[in-house]
Amino acid sequence: MARKRIVIVGAGFGGMAAAKALKGADADITLIDRTNHHLFQPLLYQVATAALSPADIATATRALLERQTNVTVLMGEVTGVDAELGLVKTTDTADLAFDWLILATGAAYSFFGHETWAADAPVLKSLADALVIRERLLGAFEWAESHAGHQDIGGALTFVVVGGGPTGVELAGTIAELCRSTLARDFRRINPASARIILFEAGPHLLSAFPRRLSGYARKTLDALGVEVRTGVAVDHIDADGLAAGRERIATHNILWCAGTTARPAAKWLAAEAAKNGAVKVAADCSVPGHPTIFAVGDVASSDAGGGRTLPGLAPVAKQQGSYVGALLKARIAGRREPRPFHYRDLGTLAVIGRSRAVADFGWLRLTGFTAWLTWSLVHLMLLVDFRSRLMVYANWSWAWFTHGRGARLVVRHD
Amino acid sequence: MARKRIVIVGAGFGGMAAAKALKGADADITLIDRTNHHLFQPLLYQVATAALSPADIATATRALLERQTNVTVLMGEVTGVDAELGLVKTTDTADLAFDWLILATGAAYSFFGHETWAADAPVLKSLADALVIRERLLGAFEWAESHAGHQDIGGALTFVVVGGGPTGVELAGTIAELCRSTLARDFRRINPASARIILFEAGPHLLSAFPRRLSGYARKTLDALGVEVRTGVAVDHIDADGLAAGRERIATHNILWCAGTTARPAAKWLAAEAAKNGAVKVAADCSVPGHPTIFAVGDVASSDAGGGRTLPGLAPVAKQQGSYVGALLKARIAGRREPRPFHYRDLGTLAVIGRSRAVADFGWLRLTGFTAWLTWSLVHLMLLVDFRSRLMVYANWSWAWFTHGRGARLVVRHD
Repeated sequence: MARKRIVIVGAGFGGMAAAKALKGADADITLIDRTNHHLFQPLLYQVATAALSPADIATATRALLERQTNVTVLMGEVTGVDAELGLVKTTDTADLAFDWLILATGAAYSFFGHETWAADAPVLKSLADALVIRERLLGAFEWAESHAGHQDIGGALTFVVVGGGPTGVELAGTIAELCRSTLARDFRRINPASARIILFEAGPHLLSAFPRRLSGYARKTLDALGVEVRTGVAVDHIDADGLAAGRERIATHNILWCAGTTARPAAKWLAAEAAKNGAVKVAADCSVPGHPTIFAVGDVASSDAGGGRTLPGLAPVAKQQGSYVGALLKARIAGRREPRPFHYRDLGTLAVIGRSRAVADFGWLRLTGFTAWLTWSLVHLMLLVDFRSRLMVYANWSWAWFTHGRGARLVVRHD
Repeated sequence: MARKRIVIVGAGFGGMAAAKALKGADADITLIDRTNHHLFQPLLYQVATAALSPADIATATRALLERQTNVTVLMGEVTGVDAELGLVKTTDTADLAFDWLILATGAAYSFFGHETWAADAPVLKSLADALVIRERLLGAFEWAESHAGHQDIGGALTFVVVGGGPTGVELAGTIAELCRSTLARDFRRINPASARIILFEAGPHLLSAFPRRLSGYARKTLDALGVEVRTGVAVDHIDADGLAAGRERIATHNILWCAGTTARPAAKWLAAEAAKNGAVKVAADCSVPGHPTIFAVGDVASSDAGGGRTLPGLAPVAKQQGSYVGALLKARIAGRREPRPFHYRDLGTLAVIGRSRAVADFGWLRLTGFTAWLTWSLVHLMLLVDFRSRLMVYANWSWAWFTHGRGARLVVRHD
C-alpha cells in the first residue's frame, strides 16, 4: 500500500496543531501557507502598536517543523480544491495530490458588503497588516508635528477603532496608552495626549462573549484611559476623510477595522454547505459532509456546539480541532482505534485592556484588573511557540512595563 | 539677541552626535531626517540576513532626544538649501530658517553610471533596504522548494555579492552560514548547502582598508565557508537574469550591491566644491568654505587628512565630527573659547566574516579569529545607542550562537 499523502492548507493554530499531531505518522504530509511563518495572532495588536517586533511573535514554519521529517513545508497560495481527483490547486507550485486534506485557512475581516472601505480602514490579520497599521499610527504623529497649525491636525490625531471585540478593545486601550504615556514627552509642537480615541461597537456591549460584569469593567477601564466608547452605533460610511456613524460625522485619517469576520473561501472550493459567515459546516469528526477525506478546522469550520450554537472562532478551538484531526488520521493510518467525536474543552477566555488591566473568564472564576492581566501575561508567554519568542516577548514586556516605552517605534517604508 | 536657530539635516551618527553635543545650548535646534529613527548601520547586514529585527538596531529619534528639550525632531525630506536667506527647503513642512546649518546627510551606493542595475541589485543602506534583501534571500529558498526540478533552480540558489569591503564580506560570510548551517535541515526537496555564494571585488584585495595580512585572513575564512571569491574582476553588466563579469556569465536572481558609495547631494544644494564622490570639501573646522554658517560632517563631508588623503567614510569619523561641530556651536553661543580644529582620533577598525571569525586593526594590535570576533561583538554591543537595543541584540546573539538559528526568518510582504 502506498504511503498516504496528507495536505494541510494553512499554518495557523489549526494547521500547525494538525501537523504536529501527525508526528511519526507513516505519511507524506505537505503543509502549505501563503506566508512562510506561523503567527501568534493574539499578540498581533502589540506589533501594530509598536510594542513588539514581528519576529517576536512569528517563527518560520519550516524551522518549527525542522525535525519532523514527514512534513514538507511550502509557501504558496491555494486557489481551489478538486475533491474528485484529490488535488489542491495552487498558484505557486504543481497541484498537490492528497488522500486526506485538512483545511485550516482561517478567517478574514468582513466589511459587510462595503469592500471599498478597506482602503481607509485597515484590518489586523497578518504581519503585513500590523506593519501597515504601525506605520500609519506613528506616521500620523510625525505628520502632525511637521504640520502644527494645519487644518487637518484634528483628523490626523483622531483614532477610530470599529468593533468592540477583544482585538478592538486591545487596540483602543493600547493606542490610548501610546498617546497619553509613551509619546507624551516626545513632541514639541503637538500634544499627543490630546489625541482622540473613539471605539465603535454596533452591539449593546463591548466584549459581548464575556459575562456582563467583565464587559462593564472593560468599558470603565477604557473610559478611564480616555477612550470614547460608543456602543449600539453602527458605522454607516467610511472614506478618506473620516467616518459617519449614527448622527455623528468624525474627521479622521486613522480608522482601524476590527468588526465582523468571514471565513476564507474553502466552502466555495468544495461547493459545501456553509454557515452565514462562509465557514464550512463540519460533522462531529471535523470532516466535511459528502467529502469523507476532507476535514476543516478552526475559523474556516462551523462546528455545531449544541443548542443551535456553533463553536467560537478562537485559537483554542482551532488548536484542539487541528490536534484532533491529526490524531484521528494518525490512528487511521496505523490501524488503531480512532478517537471519539471532537469535543471542545473550554479553558477560559482572556482579553487585555491596557497596562495591568485585563479580564479573564474561566467560567468558575472571573477576574479583572491586575490579577487578570498577570494571568493573561503568563498564559500568553507560555502559549508562544518557541523558547526564543518567549525570551524576546518577556524582555520587551519587562522593558516596556518599567519604562512605559515601546521598542518598535519605526516608520520603515518611504512612499 | 534672539535665540539662535540650528538646523541639523540627518539623524545618522553625525547628526545625532551634533544634536547631543548641543545639549543645554541656548538655541532652538531642529533635527530633520527622512526616517523617524536613528539606525545603527554597522549591524544592518544582520537584519538583511534574518539574525536581528529592525527594532533591535533602530530607535525612534525623538525617543532618544526626549529629554533634550531644545531639540525639535521632524520627519521629512530636505530638497535644498537657500544659503543666502538661511533656509532649508523640505517637501513635508514649511521652510526651516537657520542661523547655523549642519549637513549630515550621509552617502548612498553608486552604480557608477549604471543606475538601471539598481532594480536587480539591491543595496543595503536603510531598514527598508534590509527588509527587501531579507525577503528576497528567504524567498529564493521558498521558491526553490516549491519548484524543485525547475530550470531556474540554479539561478534561484546562486547569491552574488558585489563589493569586497566590510559590508560585502559580512554579507557573503553570513549568507554562506545561513545556507550551510541555519537552513540546512529545513528543506525536503532542495539542499540549501548546495547554494553558490560568489563575492566580486574589482580591486586586488578584500577589505582593502585593512592591513594585507588581515585581508588574506578574510579571504581564507570565506574560502573555508565555501564562498567563491573573485578579486580583480569588475562587473560589466547586471540584469534580471544575472551578471556578467570578466569572462564569466552567472545566472542568478540574487545580486547584492555593496560597491562604491557616493555622497548625498548636499554639495549641489550649496553649489560648493565637491570631491570625486560628491562629498562637500570642508575646512579644518568642518565648515563649508564660503559658507561660514554651514557645516558638513560624516560621509557627506570630504575632510583633508593630510598627504592628499581624505578621512574615510566610517561611523567614528561621522560621530567625532558631529560632536565637534556641536561643541563648537555650543561654545560660540555661550561666548566661550571655541575648540581647536577637528582632529580625527582613529580607534581602530573591525570587520566580521562569520560566526566566531573577524578581523580587528588597532594599528598597534592586529587580531584575527575568535579574539577579533569577541572584540567586535563587545564593541558593537557597547556602541548600540540604548539599553534596550543592547539587551535585545545580546539575547538574539546568544540564542543564535548556541542554536545556529536565525530569529527573524520572515517573509512579510505579499506581492
